[in-house]
Formats: sequence, structure tokens, C-alpha cells
Amino acid sequence: MEELGVGSVLLTGCDGGLGLGLLKGLLEQHRPPQHIFAACLDPQGKAISEVALGNPSIMVLPLDVTDPNSIKAAVRKVQEKVGSAGLNLLINNAGTTRRSTLATETAENMTLVYTTNTIGPLQMSQAFLPLLKEAAEAEGQHEMSCSRAAIINISSILGSIEAGEAWEERQDICYRCSKAALNMLTKCLALEYGGRGILCVSVDPGCVTPPLGQGMGPVTMEESVQGVLRLLARLSGTSNGTFWDWRGQILPW
Amino acid sequence: MEELGVGSVLLTGCDGGLGLGLLKGLLEQHRPPQHIFAACLDPQGKAISEVALGNPSIMVLPLDVTDPNSIKAAVRKVQEKVGSAGLNLLINNAGTTRRSTLATETAENMTLVYTTNTIGPLQMSQAFLPLLKEAAEAEGQHEMSCSRAAIINISSILGSIEAGEAWEERQDICYRCSKAALNMLTKCLALEYGGRGILCVSVDPGCVTPPLGQGMGPVTMEESVQGVLRLLARLSGTSNGTFWDWRGQILPW
Ligand SMILES: NC(=O)c1ccc[n+]([C@@H]2O[C@H](COP(=O)([O-])OP(=O)(O)OC[C@H]3O[C@@H](n4cnc5c(N)ncnc54)[C@H](OP(=O)(O)O)[C@@H]3O)[C@@H](O)[C@H]2O)c1
Ligand SMILES: NC(=O)c1ccc[n+]([C@@H]2O[C@H](COP(=O)([O-])OP(=O)(O)OC[C@H]3O[C@@H](n4cnc5c(N)ncnc54)[C@H](OP(=O)(O)O)[C@@H]3O)[C@@H](O)[C@H]2O)c1
Repeated sequence: MEELGVGSVLLTGCDGGLGLGLLKGLLEQHRPPQHIFAACLDPQGKAISEVALGNPSIMVLPLDVTDPNSIKAAVRKVQEKVGSAGLNLLINNAGTTRRSTLATETAENMTLVYTTNTIGPLQMSQAFLPLLKEAAEAEGQHEMSCSRAAIINISSILGSIEAGEAWEERQDICYRCSKAALNMLTKCLALEYGGRGILCVSVDPGCVTPPLGQGMGPVTMEESVQGVLRLLARLSGTSNGTFWDWRGQILPW
Repeated sequence: MEELGVGSVLLTGCDGGLGLGLLKGLLEQHRPPQHIFAACLDPQGKAISEVALGNPSIMVLPLDVTDPNSIKAAVRKVQEKVGSAGLNLLINNAGTTRRSTLATETAENMTLVYTTNTIGPLQMSQAFLPLLKEAAEAEGQHEMSCSRAAIINISSILGSIEAGEAWEERQDICYRCSKAALNMLTKCLALEYGGRGILCVSVDPGCVTPPLGQGMGPVTMEESVQGVLRLLARLSGTSNGTFWDWRGQILPW
């Protein structure tokens, strides 16, 4: 199996769920990353503390993706650690939702979920761009890949306008709209940063855990994590600005 | 030429630009609508006042699509006028943007533009649903069409993730993300209301006026208005939940 083999990774939303799963998956690789920045709302949380305990390659960072000061502080800490090698891979995984239907959806939900799921990744990408650029420009780097320099936005099949997936089970307009907008952000990032060697891709991890995955069918966390890591290992320049699922299949916008 | 031939229409953002253009275009039809609700931020504005003057079929309504109280008041006024016939056609045209690039985009811009361009049409659709349903259920109505009951969301080619249009000329991430999210809203509306006979479609009017149309190529207001009205006249059930341009061509999400 191809492996990711990346120098440094920052993952948001590592408190639990998919973020924690991806973190563990990265650690289990044959060549785990040299530096893993595990960004959490609560860096003292039990689950993340257990995983990080005694592992010198993990740095747990407090990070609220909706708070510019918190993002700035994280950039400084990452920079101190990676130096001129830069940051290879930013995974915008943190996300939230509110259960709703078209009849019950509110402006408050819409704004709240958009702020975390869409504006958060925008602000993270802007703030980490200098470090990603450094990684992209590092010597010996030619092809675009997640090992060189990349932004992966964790989206959802529910954000595919074309698919209109699982409408009967969960409408969550706030979530669907935020993920469609996140996919647009991926395209914008790809158009702008692609030329500088930074790969930008949206990924649907499959529907795994409640509450986000409630009633959405049987993908285990293990399948999702392994599928996403396998996908990241094979993404290249031709995938810039596209949308994939955990099985390695391309998705329509 | 096919003509729209619709009983009642509500158009948001009639203060100027495309909204005012569509209003005039509707009035010039052989069979103009019986009731036109011209919703404006400023109902005393010069341009709208001139068009409405002495025309009994136009009712100018104060309406801020981001203000639920203002929307509620508009619903009451429309209801008084149309009675049990309901409202046939809601055109969510009001929109805004902020000039920005990936480097300069801000959370404030993102939230502001999303609130007007995405949450506004959501709240309008929720509020006018009872009146649209009445129109959909009126006697003699069978096929889905803009004459029977429809929500038209005025989107933009800049909201097409697939197209990635005109990136070099204007990035406006806030605008692109809001329109991609609006397209998702169109799909959600189509999935939910389609079964009740209400047609929901996104339309790109082409790039006509500054500032929104700046540098985006030569479509005259007349071409845009006539193109959009021609398109609305031919939309049917098979177009529910899709995205079209003013030339009558289907667009990718
Ligand atoms: N689970 C699924 O089935 C599924 C399917 C498709 C896509 N996804 C996507 O996968 C990603 C992870 O989802 P998940 O299922 O693992 O959900 P989750 O268990 O709720 O995890 C989301 C993580 O993001 C964190 N978070 C929320 N707001 C944040 C903020 N402002 N700043 C930093 N972190 C924040 C959460 O912290 P708290 O727990 O402290 O709030 C949590 O650690 C999300 O983007 C989600 O949309 C999930
Ligand atoms: N022009 C183009 O080239 C172009 C291309 C593609 C799509 N579009 C779309 O077409 C629609 C009309 O655009 P336009 O070019 O006619 O722009 P415009 O001249 O700026 O007109 C937009 C209208 O919406 C109104 N508006 C703004 N915020 C509002 C709110 N909260 N509530 C109610 N009304 C509000 C504006 O009022 P004020 O003027 O008082 O702010 C104005 O009357 C927009 O949805 C736009 O995104 C335009």
C-alpha cells in the first residue's frame, strides 16, 4: 500500500471523532510524520492527552478555528517547531452542525455553522499559507502532493449539490450550505495556491460517528481513516481543486 | 416567443440593477402579471417610484431580506392582496458583494454577504411557503412552472464551483461561497417543495452592471432581462433543482 510519508501535519478538531481517528492513523503508519500538530478546542481533554502522552512527535495545540488570535498563536508555535521546512499538510477537519429541516432552520444556525465550517478553514488557510509556501518551495520538491504541501478540507457528501444525498434522513440546511461553500473555498484555494505548488482538495470521510453520522449507514471509523489516508497518499497535481470520498472515488460538486 | 403569463410575482431588490430591470421587463410583457410586488430596501427611491407611479398592478414593499420582521410584514401585505390565489412566483434577486481576494478576505465580509445572499433567500422561502403552496394547489394547475408556483434564486456563474469563472478578474471569495451555498439552498428547496408543486431553480442573469458586473464582459441589461424572462417561461418540472444561465443553458454546480 502507498503511504503518505509526510514531514509535518496539522489537524484541527482532534478532540475526538474523525480528527482523533486520523491522528491515530497517522501515528500507526510505517513512516509516521516527524511533526504532528494536534489542534483541539480543549488541549487538556482526556482522549487527546492519552494519545499524545509520551509521544514526542505530537504537539497538542489549543485552537479555535473561529478565533483569529488563537489561530495566530498556533501559527507561531508551529513555526518555532518546523523552522524553514514549513508545514506540509493542513487538514481542516474541525466542523459542527445543528439538526434542522427546511421548516425549522434559523439564521442563527446558518451563521454559526458557516462560521466554523467555512470561515474557519478560510482563516486557517490564510494564516498557514506562509508555512505551506515554505514547504512547497523546499528543495527536491517538484510534483504536487500531500507530502509536499497541501490543504485538505474535510467536507461531506451532504455538501454535494448534485448528489442531494440522504435528504429524507437529515436535511440540516445549515450544514449542507456550509459544506457546499467549503467546496467552493477548496476550488478558490486551488485556483490561487495551485500555481505555488500547494494542492487543495475536498474530502468526504464517509458517515461514521454520531451525531454527525447518525443514520447515515455503515462506515467504520477504521475504514474511513484508512480510506482517507490512502486517498491522501495518491492525490497529485491533477486532483487539485477536486472533491473525493474516503473510497478514493471522485465526487460531483 | 413564449411568455411567462404569471398571476403574481414578488421580486426582491427592486431599488435598481437587475431587480428594476426585471420589473420593467415584466411590465412590458403582452400579459403582464396581475400583481407585482416590488420589494425594496428603500420604497421611496426615485427609480422605483417612477416605475410604480400610476401603475395599479405594482405594489412597492419595504423589505430587507435579512430582517424577519420586515419579511413578516411583507407576507401580510401580499396575502391581503392575493387572497386565496396565493403567490405564484418569488424571485430572490436581492444580493450584495464585497471586493476581496484570498489574501484580503475577512470573516466580516464572509458573514455579511452570506447573510444577504444565502440566509435572506432561505428566510424569504420559509416565510412565503404558505402563499406559494396556495398558488401551487389552485384549481387547474397541474404541471410545474413559474406561472403556477416557483422560487427563482438569482445566483451567478461565480457561484459555480465547477466553472471557477473569471478568477483572474475577481476573486470575491465571500460572494462565490455565498452563491455556491445559495445553489445548495435551491437544491434543498427543490427536494422539499418539489413534491408540493413548487418549482425551485437557480439562475445566473449574466454579468451586466457595475459594480457586480465589473469587467465581466458584455451582456446588456436588456439581453439579460429578456433572457431570464424567456428562461422562466420555459422552466418545467424536469428543471426542478437545477442551475441555468440567462441564455437558457444549463450550468454545472
Ligand atoms: N462523522 C461523520 O459521519 C462525518 C461525515 C461527513 C463529514 N464529516 C466531517 O468530518 C469532520 C469531523 O467530524 P466528526 O464526525 O469527527 O465530528 P465531531 O466528533 O463533532 O468532531 C468535530 C471536532 O471539531 C471540533 N470543533 C468544533 N468547533 C470547533 C472550532 N471552532 N475550532 C476547533 N475545533 C472545533 C470539535 O470539538 P468539540 O467536540 O469540543 O466541539 C470536535 O473535536 C467534520 O468536518 C465533519 O463535518 C463527518
Ligand atoms: N450584475 C451582475 O453582473 C450580476 C451577475 C450575476 C449575478 N448577479 C446577481 O443578480 C442580483 C442583482 O444584482 P444587481 O447587479 O442588480 O446588483 P445591485 O444593483 O447591487 O442590486 C442588488 C439589489 O439588492 C438590494 N439589496 C441588498 N441587500 C438587501 C437586503 N438585505 N434586502 C433587500 N434588498 C437588498 C440592493 O439594494 P441597495 O442598492 O439599496 O443596496 C439592490 O437593490 C444579485 O443577486 C446578484 O448577485 C448580478
